[in-house]
Amino acid sequence: MRADTMSISHRDQVRQPDVAVVRAITASSGYFSQEEERLAGSLVLERLFKGLESGYHFLFAERAGQGGQADTFAFACYGPVPCTQGAWELYWIAVRQDMRGHGHGGELVARAAERMAALGGRRCLAETSARAQYAPTWRFYEAAGFTPVATVPDYWAEGEDNLIYMLRLGREEKTP
Amino acid sequence: MRADTMSISHRDQVRQPDVAVVRAITASSGYFSQEEERLAGSLVLERLFKGLESGYHFLFAERAGQGGQADTFAFACYGPVPCTQGAWELYWIAVRQDMRGHGHGGELVARAAERMAALGGRRCLAETSARAQYAPTWRFYEAAGFTPVATVPDYWAEGEDNLIYMLRLGREEKTP
Repeated sequence: MRADTMSISHRDQVRQPDVAVVRAITASSGYFSQEEERLAGSLVLERLFKGLESGYHFLFAERAGQGGQADTFAFACYGPVPCTQGAWELYWIAVRQDMRGHGHGGELVARAAERMAALGGRRCLAETSARAQYAPTWRFYEAAGFTPVATVPDYWAEGEDNLIYMLRLGREEKTP
Repeated sequence: MRADTMSISHRDQVRQPDVAVVRAITASSGYFSQEEERLAGSLVLERLFKGLESGYHFLFAERAGQGGQADTFAFACYGPVPCTQGAWELYWIAVRQDMRGHGHGGELVARAAERMAALGGRRCLAETSARAQYAPTWRFYEAAGFTPVATVPDYWAEGEDNLIYMLRLGREEKTP
């Protein structure tokens, strides 16, 4: 374990400045369109407005910044899929560009998955593009324990399929 | 064409009484759980509150009732899937029990599909359970031109898969 991981903390409370934080993290990643950046911010607003009734749970990763102020550098947004028994979806996971490549995203997903399981989640879904440029995203999900389970043709755009990943939540896979 | 179809009209404006109308139609169908009934009503509220920003489009089928008052007996709820280019989803389609079996549902889907296409939709998705008791739903979608394109295992519950249907929007399939 690298020394700097010792100073990473996680929080699930959502505050007003997180609208801007989430947009900045999303923008920095270079992965998302402006529409997606706006959407990510709007989910924080929805959560602030409606609380957990919104269906949006957040988990943030922070480190101690200059002057002791927390520097929020990554977030996950997830929630239960309405009308299902225990299906959850990981809607967003993003790590600010300067903090990528250190396993913080995987750590955040693992912690979010624990929380979903504790709230009765059986399965976690994640959706991404089947276009080859998303191969790093596929590898990220696969490293986090997700399996591709379905493909929806022409979903994101004509010729751009949706790749649906699934993670089994809970501890049953750890029995020997 | 049966004579009584002549008196059917459709509207896309959403009004406050539609919260109760939608819940009553949903409840009467016998297909949906109480959670789904509540959810259907909450989508109308969301639409009343946010307008089309909510992402929820509605189409209602009505007939002239006693005293000339319109009797709303079916609804479809659909909308664009965020962050996609032209993917729409048919979230709900329900016909009140006493009006079923006369093709009103198929007519409503066809009209909703025309509206999606007019707003730039390329594909319309619909999701349902893969459990055998939903075979009438599968037949309904297939009769409306949808094709099953993917299955997501253990989605609705453990052992109950999600069956994803897709309809190609627009008129390209009509070229000879």
